Amino acid sequence: MPKHAIAIHGGCGTMLKKLMTPEKELAYNKALEDALIAGDEILKKGGTSLDAVEKAVLSLENNHLFNAGKGSVFTNTGTHEMDAAIMNGQNLMAGAVAGVSNIKNPISLARAVMEKSEHVMLAAAGAIEFAKKINVEFEKDEYFFDQLRYDQLLKAKESDVMVMDHSGDTLSNDDTFENGGKKFGTVGAVALDMHGNIAAATSTGGMTNKKYGRLGDSPVIGSGTYANNNTCAISCTGHGEFFLRSVVAYDISCLMEYKGLSLKEACDIVVMDKLVKLGGEGGLVAIDKNGNIELPFNTEGMYRGMKAEGAEIFVRIYK
Amino acid sequence: MPKHAIAIHGGCGTMLKKLMTPEKELAYNKALEDALIAGDEILKKGGTSLDAVEKAVLSLENNHLFNAGKGSVFTNTGTHEMDAAIMNGQNLMAGAVAGVSNIKNPISLARAVMEKSEHVMLAAAGAIEFAKKINVEFEKDEYFFDQLRYDQLLKAKESDVMVMDHSGDTLSNDDTFENGGKKFGTVGAVALDMHGNIAAATSTGGMTNKKYGRLGDSPVIGSGTYANNNTCAISCTGHGEFFLRSVVAYDISCLMEYKGLSLKEACDIVVMDKLVKLGGEGGLVAIDKNGNIELPFNTEGMYRGMKAEGAEIFVRIYK
Repeated sequence: MPKHAIAIHGGCGTMLKKLMTPEKELAYNKALEDALIAGDEILKKGGTSLDAVEKAVLSLENNHLFNAGKGSVFTNTGTHEMDAAIMNGQNLMAGAVAGVSNIKNPISLARAVMEKSEHVMLAAAGAIEFAKKINVEFEKDEYFFDQLRYDQLLKAKESDVMVMDHSGDTLSNDDTFENGGKKFGTVGAVALDMHGNIAAATSTGGMTNKKYGRLGDSPVIGSGTYANNNTCAISCTGHGEFFLRSVVAYDISCLMEYKGLSLKEACDIVVMDKLVKLGGEGGLVAIDKNGNIELPFNTEGMYRGMKAEGAEIFVRIYK
Repeated sequence: MPKHAIAIHGGCGTMLKKLMTPEKELAYNKALEDALIAGDEILKKGGTSLDAVEKAVLSLENNHLFNAGKGSVFTNTGTHEMDAAIMNGQNLMAGAVAGVSNIKNPISLARAVMEKSEHVMLAAAGAIEFAKKINVEFEKDEYFFDQLRYDQLLKAKESDVMVMDHSGDTLSNDDTFENGGKKFGTVGAVALDMHGNIAAATSTGGMTNKKYGRLGDSPVIGSGTYANNNTCAISCTGHGEFFLRSVVAYDISCLMEYKGLSLKEACDIVVMDKLVKLGGEGGLVAIDKNGNIELPFNTEGMYRGMKAEGAEIFVRIYK
């Protein structure tokens, strides 16, 4: 059993290899490796799983390739509304923000909600007000601007659809839309530290052409994010509405705690059976207190990776 | 076993009998009875549990005595930000709104999110925009104004505390604050209809002097609200942060589904043991597919009531 380990994801969906170029594949793999290394650096020095998942997600948020932080997609009104959550499996403390704009790293704001407020979840303008009070780093709209994603918005508005997908640089947008390709843009991390504590973190830029202040599962403790030393730490990516209705992350925890299933058995039931029956596309990364890692998804692919103590870095995109 | 049944709550906390007047007690009991009758009318005519819980919560939202709808408390900026959620145990469909203002009945807006959008959860300004589009009933600020609650806000601002409590008309506000009394203002309902379907609904006006767009458990599927024909329907009231971290409603469902516990056993473990150990004050109303009802709370009192087919109306405030 490894003394410490970390696993991450950068979203999932229909990532068809035939539409990927070697350059883009390389860029995604490099970004995943960078995030794993950032988390692993902390873990191997004896740092906490909480620090490791925050640092890994921060690395993904700062990379324009993923739909979170800098790479967040545009809402219907041309803004960026981001959600994030973090949970500490040692004491079940949690923090989340929903619908925040101009925050460089929503995951760090979520952590501040956990550590510097009496609350678990802050939303929209109020969350921004809190962020200003505690001196979290802000960025102007230009920082989040990306021509490709802006073109996606225009295209989505034309056909009046909200696009759940993180149709990023992997596929040309035309390909994505015309092939009905779907990508669920979210990033996340789970980790076990050498003190035996596990943690989870998730961050997302939401949906292209999103209206009505829609919230998905990412910032919801129990659905998109959950951590409990007794069972597992989970970060999800996928069609948020189904993950909310299925309380996915806590469902896996309960299957382990109440039914005695292994992490793998619980993940298989929830992702490959229950979600599929409901029509919920997506995946997740999961770790238990022994450092077992699962990376299940019921879509064509999921940007994912893991690094356990004493093992090589592992990154994959397709099945 | 009854063919249909309904249970409701109007919040919980330290409701000390010595501070209650007979007039106020009567008013609360009457309001609870009215809500139960509204739901029961639907159920006994063969209507759905979904209609029954919406109608019962609507009745409580329209009554100024409870911290939901008309009786919502003031936020720090003197506004009203309300949350609500509804879930259908037959198909696991759910709808929720968070941080909405000037909506007469947030529970009906939550139901519209479930039935007229592709989403589960809409927040703040975006949710209002959706409400305008589908012609939900709006009310001006004056409709929600209440001198007593406004005085509570001034008092809370003076001491710079956010008050989770629904310190309503039961106690004089001075009494409440000086005695450190706490009341968690939320309303909710669960029901079983004669078709064998169960449903849950929850609505709240949040916290007096609330800042930062804080969200509690009420609008969160799995935490404050959950319904699943296989297990139970649950609506919670209490210190929201603890209910979020504990994923309370779904925890009860999982204890039944995965551990084979009865509704009573599951409620006892979650409300009287797990929440108490974490320091989470609150309660909930629960019903299973056989019409068994539980009304557990770990506070001094909870406004609550139930009406099963063939039985008398039951309402209580204290232990």
